[in-house]
Formats: sequence, structure tokens, C-alpha cells
Amino acid sequence: MPVETIERPSVSIDTEAAALSADIDRFFADALAEPGDGRSRLYAAMRHAAIGGGKRLRPLLVVAAARLFSIDTGRALRAGCAVEAIHVYSLIHDDLPCMDDDDMRRGKPTVHKAFGEAEAVLAGDSLHAIAFEILADPATHEDPFVRSELVLELARAVGHNGMAGGQMMDLAAEGKALDINAITRLQQLKTGALIEFSVEAACIMARLDPHARIPYRGYARNIGLAFQIVDDLIDHGGDEAVAGKKLQKDADAGKATFVSILGEERARQQAGLLVEQAIEHLSSHGREADLLRAIARFAVERNH
Amino acid sequence: MPVETIERPSVSIDTEAAALSADIDRFFADALAEPGDGRSRLYAAMRHAAIGGGKRLRPLLVVAAARLFSIDTGRALRAGCAVEAIHVYSLIHDDLPCMDDDDMRRGKPTVHKAFGEAEAVLAGDSLHAIAFEILADPATHEDPFVRSELVLELARAVGHNGMAGGQMMDLAAEGKALDINAITRLQQLKTGALIEFSVEAACIMARLDPHARIPYRGYARNIGLAFQIVDDLIDHGGDEAVAGKKLQKDADAGKATFVSILGEERARQQAGLLVEQAIEHLSSHGREADLLRAIARFAVERNH
Repeated sequence: MPVETIERPSVSIDTEAAALSADIDRFFADALAEPGDGRSRLYAAMRHAAIGGGKRLRPLLVVAAARLFSIDTGRALRAGCAVEAIHVYSLIHDDLPCMDDDDMRRGKPTVHKAFGEAEAVLAGDSLHAIAFEILADPATHEDPFVRSELVLELARAVGHNGMAGGQMMDLAAEGKALDINAITRLQQLKTGALIEFSVEAACIMARLDPHARIPYRGYARNIGLAFQIVDDLIDHGGDEAVAGKKLQKDADAGKATFVSILGEERARQQAGLLVEQAIEHLSSHGREADLLRAIARFAVERNH
Repeated sequence: MPVETIERPSVSIDTEAAALSADIDRFFADALAEPGDGRSRLYAAMRHAAIGGGKRLRPLLVVAAARLFSIDTGRALRAGCAVEAIHVYSLIHDDLPCMDDDDMRRGKPTVHKAFGEAEAVLAGDSLHAIAFEILADPATHEDPFVRSELVLELARAVGHNGMAGGQMMDLAAEGKALDINAITRLQQLKTGALIEFSVEAACIMARLDPHARIPYRGYARNIGLAFQIVDDLIDHGGDEAVAGKKLQKDADAGKATFVSILGEERARQQAGLLVEQAIEHLSSHGREADLLRAIARFAVERNH
């Protein structure tokens, strides 16, 4: 679904994402190297989930936003790995039999299928903790106020007022007729909060004052919603082999989605509009914002 | 099991624990007040687990250690609530059917029994996140370096190198003949790391340098081991009605414990010795350490 009015940016998102993915894989391979004791199976489960898969959208947002403010790439990578650790933990727990009961994720067996349910619970819990360990480490930023703010905002984004709260709303909504406002609020917590934190992390690391953060929050909010609408479109009419996971799950579960409420055509238009608005929030920036622009386009053009 | 050689401290642990428990209950009642949306069930599950139960040993350690350094009681309470949130999250996840499959906890139905498994996973995850949210909040300490260090040390204590890693060792050990060193290492991660952090939190808040922390680490390590040995003794020969949970679980699972390796009598002696050593670590302190001394005695005298 091309957005014709927007000029193609100069960067290649595929090249950037591949380089970042290699860095993330290396980070987790080092952090989760075989411990040589009774924890082997836990570390293996964590590596299975965290290494070698996924779009890495959230860490890519961190790194792309960090580029606006010339933040050291090693530090941006660490913040990106923290966000990815949270995302991966949430996928592991969401895939559990008592939650979505999924067998495949990122084209591989889910953690509980490959390692067992208890291991999946513990691998998710450990990746949850490692995210905060990364952010609070002086290697991520020399200013303790920055580290502390990164932790505070991430914790808010993932807990009962963020991702986990949204997940509960989603469970509670099964079989109920939600309107567009309720769906938007649900998705803003369930997936939006972590996407917004990904951009906010760069603003925190750059020590931007609250007023200066407004356009980047606008960008992130638009991208988060666009990304979710496209997820719904892929779940509605995508290819399971390309997606690497089971699709049509929302329809099977009787869940209201952007697509079930708006219809496919209007949902697609809405996603395109959100992406145009996201890019407008970057108008004060030159080529240093090209990766953020490319991510915005990818959010609607992707088919997985 | 009295430790006759130690003089009775002047404080009443029951009075202190009751007052602290009321403060903790109030904190979580405020933080987790009914949200009035689709998250109600999540908040209720979190309140069910976090309010009105348990010995509150870990927050009591935080508050007792904070008293050594005249740390503001409101701030010590916040750090204690963070530690308690982690402990409660770990109990919720440990009780899940795929883990220990327990129906009762603290004399009440476990969270998955009362609210469902998906809700239990999410309530645990949310309490995990709230711990870091509490610690990173400026209300916990005015110095961002302190907040950042609290987060870093807590994350290390609960993740793959701490509590969750010890939990995995425990799973991997079922049916295996562990020796006393292996059991000690397992318990040091599974339960010791969070108990040690509880005392360390006060040292961090008091900005003690690493050398000055040594005796308090010694105290915490001894208490952690003594507490676990007594847990094994209670599991071995305690009263389920008093404990508020199922007992004899380790024997049923074929797990090696301090009691199965040392025998009941030597395990009891060992716990007593550890508590004496713990109290010796406090010898430079006067009455301001009486609550820590009382906790040490409680660790071995308790029957639940």
C-alpha cells in the first residue's frame, strides 16, 4: 500500500534493519551465553526467543530517533535491546496456552512448544528483568537522571497502565462489541505504549525538555496506531507463511479490530493518513530523519 | 526453635510487622485502585495477591536496615513495596499450573484459581513492572544515582542471574541428587538474591561505599540461608493450616533440600548458627539494629 504523496527517503530500511538485527543478535548472544549450570535451559529459551527473528521495529525506532540527536550508536543500541527484550518477553507470555495458545512465532516454534511452559514463563520473566538491567547500567548513559527516567518511562509503558493493562483489556473484550474509541484506547496501551517509549527513549537520552518532545510523541503515536491497523489487515487477509505465525486469530476469537469496525478499505486509508501525519511531525528535520520516515512508510507497506 | 545464647531485642517484631503490613496494604490499595475500564480484573487480581497477606519479611528487612542509617520511613516503605511487588509476582507465577500448580497461598486461593491463568500471568507481569516504576520514581529518593542503582541491583537480583535463574535450577534439579554446595547455590539465587537486595536497598539509599556494605551483605546472606533452611523444615514437618499453603511438596517432587541432605537435627542447628553469625555482623550497632536482630531470631523461630 504505497503512500504516493511522500517522497522516497534516501535510506534503505532493509539494510538498516539487517545491520541492527545483527547487532541485537550479538548483544543477546553475549548477554545470554551458556552459563554451564542448571540454568542452561532458561538461557537457551531466552536466546531462542531473542535472537534471529522479528522485524525489530521497536529497536529500529530507538536507533532512528537517536540519530536525530546524534546519540552515540552503542548507547542507542543498548536502549533498543532493552525495548526488544520487553517486546520478546511479551510475545513469549502472549503465546502461552493460557493466553493466545500459539505454536509458531517468527517462523519458529514458540518458546513453550520448544522448551516447555514453565521455561516459557521464566524466560519471559527474565527478559522482562534484563530490560531494566540494561537501562540502569551506566554503559547505557553517563547521566543517572537519564537512566532513572528511562526506567521509569519503560516501567509505565509495560505495566498495568501500559502494555499489560492493554493485554487485559483485550482479554476482557472478547466477544464484546467495542467501538472505534475503545479499540484505539486498547491498542494504545497494548502495543502503542511500547512503540511510543521507543521514540521517547531517544528524547530522554538527548535530555529534551517536555515541550521539545511533543512532535516525536505525535510521530510515535501515529506510527503505533498505523502499525496496529496494518497488523489487523495482515491478520484479516495476510499469508501465514509470510507472517511466520497463525493468522485470522481475531476473527476466530470474535474480537473487534480496526478492520472489523472500519472495513478493509477505510482501515487502509486510515493507516496511510496516520503515516502522512507522522512524517509531518518530522518536518523540522532534514536527512537525519530519513530513517524515521522510512520506518513510517514500512509501517503501512509491509505484508508481515 | 529458640537461640538461647542471643539476648532478646527490645522491639516487637509482631508490632512492627503489623504496622508495616498496614502501610503496604494502603500503598497497593492506592496504586491499584479500581480503574473503571477493561482492566478491572487485572487490578483486582493484583490487589488479591499484594494486599493482606504474607509475612512481609522482605519489606521488613528494607525498613529495618533503613533504620540503621536514619533513612526517611516513607522512602524506605516505597523501596519495601517494590521488593514486596517482586516477591508477590514470583509467587503468582510459581503457583501457576505449569510451575508448582498450587491452589492455596497465604490462606487464600492462588491468583489463577481466583481469576484465571491468563490473569495470573498478567498480574505477575504487572507487579514485576510496578517494582521498577516505584524505585525509579523521584519520590523514592531525590538522588537519581541512588534510584538508578536500586533498579540495577534489583534487576540483577530477580533475572536470569538471580531469582528466575534459581527457579530454573530448581526445575532442572527435580529427581537429581544435589549436594549441599549445589543446594546452597540454587537457594542463594532462588530466594537469597531478593533477601540480600532487601538489605542492600537500604545501603544504596544511605549511599554507603562498597566496603561499608560488607557486614550488611553478610547479615543478609546468613538470614537468607537460615530462612530457606527453616522453610525446608516447615515443608518437611509443618502444619498446612498454619502455613496457609500445601506442604511436603519437595518430598513429593523428589527434590533435594537442606533437610533431606543434612537431616532435621543438623539443619536446625545450621539455621541457628547462621542466625548467630548474622547478628554478629551487626555488632557495631546499638539499639537501632534491634529490629534486624529480631528478624534474625524470627527467621528460625517461626512455624509458618
